[in-house]
Amino acid sequence: MKNYLVFDEAAQFYECGFCCDNAVVIVIGDQRYFITDPRYSLEASEQSLNTEVIESDDLIASARKIIRKSGAKQFVIDCLDIHYQQAVDLTSKLPHIHFRYSKRFHDIRRAVKRADETQNIKNAVAENRVVFSTLAAFISENREKITENDLYIKAKELLQNNHKREMSFDPILAISENGAKPHAKPSERELLRNDTILFDAGTKYKRYCSDRTRTAVYSDHGLNFETDQHFSDKNRQKIYDLVLKAHDHAINSARAGMRAKELDQIARQVIADGGYGEFFTHSLGHGVGLKIHEEPFINRKNDLILEDNMIFTIEPGIYIPNEFGVRIEDIVMLENGRATVL
Amino acid sequence: MKNYLVFDEAAQFYECGFCCDNAVVIVIGDQRYFITDPRYSLEASEQSLNTEVIESDDLIASARKIIRKSGAKQFVIDCLDIHYQQAVDLTSKLPHIHFRYSKRFHDIRRAVKRADETQNIKNAVAENRVVFSTLAAFISENREKITENDLYIKAKELLQNNHKREMSFDPILAISENGAKPHAKPSERELLRNDTILFDAGTKYKRYCSDRTRTAVYSDHGLNFETDQHFSDKNRQKIYDLVLKAHDHAINSARAGMRAKELDQIARQVIADGGYGEFFTHSLGHGVGLKIHEEPFINRKNDLILEDNMIFTIEPGIYIPNEFGVRIEDIVMLENGRATVL
Repeated sequence: MKNYLVFDEAAQFYECGFCCDNAVVIVIGDQRYFITDPRYSLEASEQSLNTEVIESDDLIASARKIIRKSGAKQFVIDCLDIHYQQAVDLTSKLPHIHFRYSKRFHDIRRAVKRADETQNIKNAVAENRVVFSTLAAFISENREKITENDLYIKAKELLQNNHKREMSFDPILAISENGAKPHAKPSERELLRNDTILFDAGTKYKRYCSDRTRTAVYSDHGLNFETDQHFSDKNRQKIYDLVLKAHDHAINSARAGMRAKELDQIARQVIADGGYGEFFTHSLGHGVGLKIHEEPFINRKNDLILEDNMIFTIEPGIYIPNEFGVRIEDIVMLENGRATVL
Repeated sequence: MKNYLVFDEAAQFYECGFCCDNAVVIVIGDQRYFITDPRYSLEASEQSLNTEVIESDDLIASARKIIRKSGAKQFVIDCLDIHYQQAVDLTSKLPHIHFRYSKRFHDIRRAVKRADETQNIKNAVAENRVVFSTLAAFISENREKITENDLYIKAKELLQNNHKREMSFDPILAISENGAKPHAKPSERELLRNDTILFDAGTKYKRYCSDRTRTAVYSDHGLNFETDQHFSDKNRQKIYDLVLKAHDHAINSARAGMRAKELDQIARQVIADGGYGEFFTHSLGHGVGLKIHEEPFINRKNDLILEDNMIFTIEPGIYIPNEFGVRIEDIVMLENGRATVL
């Protein structure tokens, strides 16, 4: 793949070392062009690497000009990375250029991580783990009335480390029945003994994301975010153990050379065999890098073949509406054909 | 406009009172459908208003089904609100439906604000103003070495009010020469006497945005974010006064019935007449609401006619590369045909 266009900010950054919310990057062989408006052009010139920065108030018109001048005849575009109008403006006025639409081609390009990317993700994961243990200590030591929203605010404070760090996404902090919504927003629901807390959060390190979920019981002894959890309710314990089994089994079974959908099926089968198949309502996992959700998407449909140095989440869950939900998520990396938890 | 589809989160929220990052809303006459995946469907059902929620792993396939069933023959789509692939998947399998692409039709629909929206924006503006005065006091009272990045962190702390409030966007805090980049990222540059600080920030109130910019001199007396500023350098004073003149003139000249581009031209002419036309490198302003940038866009090209109850920014600027930049921004609302500063 020699020539392509990308709009997505993660793709911009990956290509040029700089990104902003209004730019298109054109790669023609070894040459990179970063087209952006005057708000960003000076910074783009200073911070981008091996890139020609072009200032323009009409990105698509400037892109056409570069494409025409280059003499190149074929370009690849991700059909999910260009708006309908942009595609029309770009292609209809360049009838002699062949534009090939390839879904998520740049995400796939980024799926196998370089060593420096891996290190950034490992650093993010390590810092994120500290957030989990600090939040657990805060909850355990707390003696006052505390709500889901209080915990959400505390979690954001820890994740952002006094505004010195970016979050990978807005955290999810859900008590018991709210945990049944995989992407719950916090409420004024008070935390009580025997409640469960589902906490899904990630920090960034040099733009690279981390992502982790734990489901924990709040008992008389407080709470911890280890995977060994003890529920007073037998049915809840059964559900939790089943999710943990699916999580562990998927990690142990992951292999380079396997298709993403095969790995999804391995975890899904465990939960289906346990009788809760219909309550595992989302995909098993997703790649993590410059974006919090990227290739490899570990879902029912993805034919992508997993390779060494791909980094992705394993996060099975069971959600019983209006009762509670369990999700357990770790980030793994394929090395020597097998998955290592980061 | 009876039938349409929207993907944009602000448009989803405006229509249904709920939004998430993977949904499409279909409006057919008085009927609203919110199609989303199982991660969000339970919350969508609880929080949306007068809306039928449909859970689906394939939003476009479900959209096609609803469109077919409805019997409606015409739908409007914003060609900037749908990816190329989604447009192909939707329209190619519904050959008998007429899809009309209309650029920013939903942004335009939202441009005239209801009273409750106006109140939310006014509340956001009021809270944002307090952030500016608090930051000015912090800088004025500070006696230690302080960097651009320190100030950026402090600004985020104030804007987020101890994580209880959302920001409209990542603030811009730029000292002197960094202010020449309209969207500068913070550096370790130390704040010194006679530096200027360009501060552009906004808070949200019930999802509605505010937006404000001030450029201020840091003198022996500290700093304030009023528009009356005194520079020791005569040339800088001249540039500042010119931006302020353009800002005031645009606000005094704005009229309902005027085209957005005419208002842009009024401010641009002031700066051009002062000899700095080439250094006013962006548009005069933009609408503010559920999105920080929405219609009416006050730029050179926009033919949209300004109307009462539209709310937008007036933010002329002059940027001298590697020296300094000035931008002065307020939010105005058209009432009784004229602009009032909120």
